Amino acid sequence: MTPDDASSRAPIGIFDSGLGGLTVLQEIERQLPDEDTVYFGDSGRAPYGTKSHDTIVKFALQDMRFLLEHRIKALVIACNTASAHAFDEIRAEAGIPVLEVIGPGAMAAAQATRNGRIGIIGTQATVDSGVYLRAVETLTPLGVVIHQQACPLFVGLAEEGWWENDIARRVAVEYLAPLRKAGIDTLVLGCTHYPLLKKVISEAMGPSVALIDSATEVARATRSRLALAGLGEPPRVEGHTARHVFYTSDSAERFRQLGGAFLRKEIAEAHKVEIERF
Amino acid sequence: MTPDDASSRAPIGIFDSGLGGLTVLQEIERQLPDEDTVYFGDSGRAPYGTKSHDTIVKFALQDMRFLLEHRIKALVIACNTASAHAFDEIRAEAGIPVLEVIGPGAMAAAQATRNGRIGIIGTQATVDSGVYLRAVETLTPLGVVIHQQACPLFVGLAEEGWWENDIARRVAVEYLAPLRKAGIDTLVLGCTHYPLLKKVISEAMGPSVALIDSATEVARATRSRLALAGLGEPPRVEGHTARHVFYTSDSAERFRQLGGAFLRKEIAEAHKVEIERF
Repeated sequence: MTPDDASSRAPIGIFDSGLGGLTVLQEIERQLPDEDTVYFGDSGRAPYGTKSHDTIVKFALQDMRFLLEHRIKALVIACNTASAHAFDEIRAEAGIPVLEVIGPGAMAAAQATRNGRIGIIGTQATVDSGVYLRAVETLTPLGVVIHQQACPLFVGLAEEGWWENDIARRVAVEYLAPLRKAGIDTLVLGCTHYPLLKKVISEAMGPSVALIDSATEVARATRSRLALAGLGEPPRVEGHTARHVFYTSDSAERFRQLGGAFLRKEIAEAHKVEIERF
Repeated sequence: MTPDDASSRAPIGIFDSGLGGLTVLQEIERQLPDEDTVYFGDSGRAPYGTKSHDTIVKFALQDMRFLLEHRIKALVIACNTASAHAFDEIRAEAGIPVLEVIGPGAMAAAQATRNGRIGIIGTQATVDSGVYLRAVETLTPLGVVIHQQACPLFVGLAEEGWWENDIARRVAVEYLAPLRKAGIDTLVLGCTHYPLLKKVISEAMGPSVALIDSATEVARATRSRLALAGLGEPPRVEGHTARHVFYTSDSAERFRQLGGAFLRKEIAEAHKVEIERF
């Protein structure tokens, strides 16, 4: 495959149920600074992690169809819940390379563990799907033990800005006690909101447990995949600045404000989408 | 107006963003045991309390249109956020009596206060709307002081089943400290999830503060309103049992399970709706 210049200059499409995927965007910006991106955050219907399989698949396919209209060269599912439930459906319909957050996180965990005991935390829907569990299992030898734990309140804490206070600390201790007791040495942060709570999670688990951030891992995977497909960074043009455009299913102004606070930098351009039409 | 028997035998329609409105349904069942009901919970797009005005109005109108197809005789907006943002739009379109949760709660608070200091807690969207504030203001004399506080994590705690544990207690103390400091003697629970946390809220506020539960108040208002419109309880028929039907925009099975746990009784009949069509 020898893609023409036009397609390698096309943007990368990224979607999430809301703001959480901005941690993935941030990592893509850091690792692939010359790439343009189009981000869709489904804030009007967020969160996905409390919903059923069929609803998540329906929403994720609509998100994909919207981004495909922007002639993206690759699609990144920056939401663990959507990755767990809708990857097959999306890949079948997309017609372009599709990256998701679970495989890269599972791979990193399989490589990081020394004692063969791995923990995975995520939303209820992600944990219920069992997709992480199976992904790690297929990458590790027999005898590796995997423990899962749903942490529904972490998303609320992250959005409330309670990242390091006493309440966040207590919730982390409560949710993570079974994983600590299980003696894991590697913990996958299986929700894009969770890196914001890294400090209290790390405190609750102790210093010897390695935390795997799926945002970092999927950005790395995106870089390799684009290079492999000959769709990597376009030749640098003097003075070129990568363009990052944002769309949301809720108010654009609200997305600019909350997303800006989340990223801790200004979001210049956000637009509203009627996502039900897709 | 002399409605025919058919219309007084019609069901009451009730909607909420998800499960919270089941506390309202429960009160209606208790106060109006002979009335049939049709409940719609928008679990596929829940919660509403974190979303923008336009999105809440759009969703609430769709919820209403769906219920109107069931030839309901009255509509109860069992969601504080939707009541705060979409009551005018719904009333303009419904063509039947519409009840909402804010007016009755505000009235009860105005009657309950002795020291003229009233607190209101709710979702971010409810608080931002200022609708409760104005409702209480119009019902109380000059000089009454009203304090508002958004408590976003309360919904997550209620849904997690953490109703009385140490974390719920700490979150309540954290959110309610300013209201306690303000010396209020009456607190409106301005979100249908909050009655589940009544115990820790009451502990955080102290025994002298009266808690106003909007579910109780709106059920009372519904009874009066139906009587006034000649649409009250139909004549009892020997052996008649009221019928309660449930619809949801997410999985019906999931609604039966979670809703049953929420109500602590079995939900016999639940169906899925494609709410975007309305």
